[in-house]
Amino acid sequence: MAQLYSSVKPTPMLKDELDIVIPTIRNLDFLEMWRPFFEQYHLIIVQDGDPSKVINIPVGFDYELYNRNDINRILGPKASCISFKDSACRCFGYMVSKKKYIYTIDDDCFVAKDPTGKEINALEQHIKNLLSPSTPHFFNTLYDPYRDGADFVRGYPFSMREGAITAVSHGLWLNIPDYDAPTQLVKPLEKNSRKFDLPLRLPILYVDAVMTIPKGTLFPMCGMNLAFDRELIGPAMYFGLMGDGQPIGRYDDMWAGWCVKVICDHMGWGVKTGLPYIWHSKASNPFVNLKKEYNGIFWQEEAIPFFQSVTLPKECTSVQQCYLELAKLVREKLGKVDPYFITLATGMVTWIEAWEELNSAEGTEAEAPNGKNE
Amino acid sequence: MAQLYSSVKPTPMLKDELDIVIPTIRNLDFLEMWRPFFEQYHLIIVQDGDPSKVINIPVGFDYELYNRNDINRILGPKASCISFKDSACRCFGYMVSKKKYIYTIDDDCFVAKDPTGKEINALEQHIKNLLSPSTPHFFNTLYDPYRDGADFVRGYPFSMREGAITAVSHGLWLNIPDYDAPTQLVKPLEKNSRKFDLPLRLPILYVDAVMTIPKGTLFPMCGMNLAFDRELIGPAMYFGLMGDGQPIGRYDDMWAGWCVKVICDHMGWGVKTGLPYIWHSKASNPFVNLKKEYNGIFWQEEAIPFFQSVTLPKECTSVQQCYLELAKLVREKLGKVDPYFITLATGMVTWIEAWEELNSAEGTEAEAPNGKNE
Repeated sequence: MAQLYSSVKPTPMLKDELDIVIPTIRNLDFLEMWRPFFEQYHLIIVQDGDPSKVINIPVGFDYELYNRNDINRILGPKASCISFKDSACRCFGYMVSKKKYIYTIDDDCFVAKDPTGKEINALEQHIKNLLSPSTPHFFNTLYDPYRDGADFVRGYPFSMREGAITAVSHGLWLNIPDYDAPTQLVKPLEKNSRKFDLPLRLPILYVDAVMTIPKGTLFPMCGMNLAFDRELIGPAMYFGLMGDGQPIGRYDDMWAGWCVKVICDHMGWGVKTGLPYIWHSKASNPFVNLKKEYNGIFWQEEAIPFFQSVTLPKECTSVQQCYLELAKLVREKLGKVDPYFITLATGMVTWIEAWEELNSAEGTEAEAPNGKNE
Repeated sequence: MAQLYSSVKPTPMLKDELDIVIPTIRNLDFLEMWRPFFEQYHLIIVQDGDPSKVINIPVGFDYELYNRNDINRILGPKASCISFKDSACRCFGYMVSKKKYIYTIDDDCFVAKDPTGKEINALEQHIKNLLSPSTPHFFNTLYDPYRDGADFVRGYPFSMREGAITAVSHGLWLNIPDYDAPTQLVKPLEKNSRKFDLPLRLPILYVDAVMTIPKGTLFPMCGMNLAFDRELIGPAMYFGLMGDGQPIGRYDDMWAGWCVKVICDHMGWGVKTGLPYIWHSKASNPFVNLKKEYNGIFWQEEAIPFFQSVTLPKECTSVQQCYLELAKLVREKLGKVDPYFITLATGMVTWIEAWEELNSAEGTEAEAPNGKNE
């Protein structure tokens, strides 16, 4: 029945409804390769680290750039909820965007090719994923039933074939996968090499599928290649407190993923994973990563069971309400694991306050950023 | 960490530990194509329909054949739990097998080719799936982490990386997908044709993935290409009462799938779906299918929410106990939907009694079947 529920029209490219958010500390030369796919979109660049450093952006792109001084000026004391010296700072871009959709990508991610050698328009696939429904309530063995050529299989309840609204599209990576430091360390070719950007022993499989992560199931959400409906789930896309002054890094997207999934499940929205792939060029240093991750590796053993068992009260009917309830529960339950979670719970509340300030109907427009649009 | 948890040794082919169960009403010429893959295994052929009809089995295969007379003789009054004139009769083969693993396949399923043109050894992939762990408690975005070249991604809790025992491996189909009658009817090429074995409008995608269906999520289990650990989950692999004398057909495998998934979730075992593909040669007639399915299409709207909400008591520590508890709940809750479910609940209890009779340590060997082994 795919043709009854999905559209055979070309994908609308949502030029005026989508911002691309890029956190960076370096020159954005990677944009050259993305030019045919990104040039028509507005970019929000969140500069991490030293604000006096000049970020070089290839000519012709439409962008706004925020550095730490901008964040401090715009948010005032509430800037405390935005991480520094960690790509978690990207969530500031979600907050200042005025668009319905966000695509966020890391600056070491390039255009991948599909098995036929064709360059993959990652953004187009994310838009397809976001604009077609999800199936969180029952599993379709032929994957995304709304995809051309696919459908619901025998035994799929007809009452569920309308599906759910899609809030998140989680894309994957060819070349260097998103592994934790211990896994990076034990992979033979990496272990035996002094360079850590070697390809892994076996290529990552290109799996030609998009699927909905079922209701009640958590997943490790990677922020490298991620799109979402900001109007729906934006207030829950907080990447936490990581990096400078914090006892943890590299768990920003994981944290957001746990919160987002619990809230999407509560709201009845879908989260998809699979296509599109990007080409991840460079493995980060596993020794540096281990230092950032070790608390997260330890704490996730408590945090994940916490999120698996969380039930949000029926009274929470907005994402903001859900998120504040979650912050309360994090403080209560995870605060016992480590005082860091009490700080984080405070950050979660501040994030919502800042989000409301910048996004309320009565709110004034955000102040002009430091970087000028070319 | 895949190399820490999985084996790089060749797949053990389990020659003496696996039976292939084939329900049929016709000559088994399809076995010729499977000869290189099946010849070393013992086949259990369950002949449906007229017992006097002679089924032709290609020479060289090791098999036992049971027709309706054999089933009646072996089970006596308990033969009432085995369907007649429906491929649901195949579950009799699970009951009389003495092996640890079962692979069941339909007789219109042929050897498929992978995208490189290589013939797929479906059985070998099922064995790989069954012998490696599952991940029902947390989602791995790179699919099966135990597969060569794959792994657990960043953020996957280390305490969960041992995974769970795998009870079921659900394979898929190229060419003709497993659609219900309404979907068969509305697919344009089928609708506009007087023949119903035409290929569909778009080819089924070959998706190179195996994944675990998360805990708490139901799926439509198709019996066309299915393997399972009989010692673990066999007593729950009952294909229900379908066909002759029953108001429903083509829901045998769906019924088994709902029961099996609920019980695997309770026992902490995994269910995988994805690879291997077989080549499904022929779509069945959608008008005939509609007649068989219409009650199922209606009832599944009640049955699926029932199975989604079932909780088995902790006291149920064996599959048999779980299954009898489920039978009780089916009688209580689904009996209100239609008296058929009361009959089915009785069939479930009879099935367990018959299973115990044939499989208890004290039980005598099953009587020799009618068909002789060539």
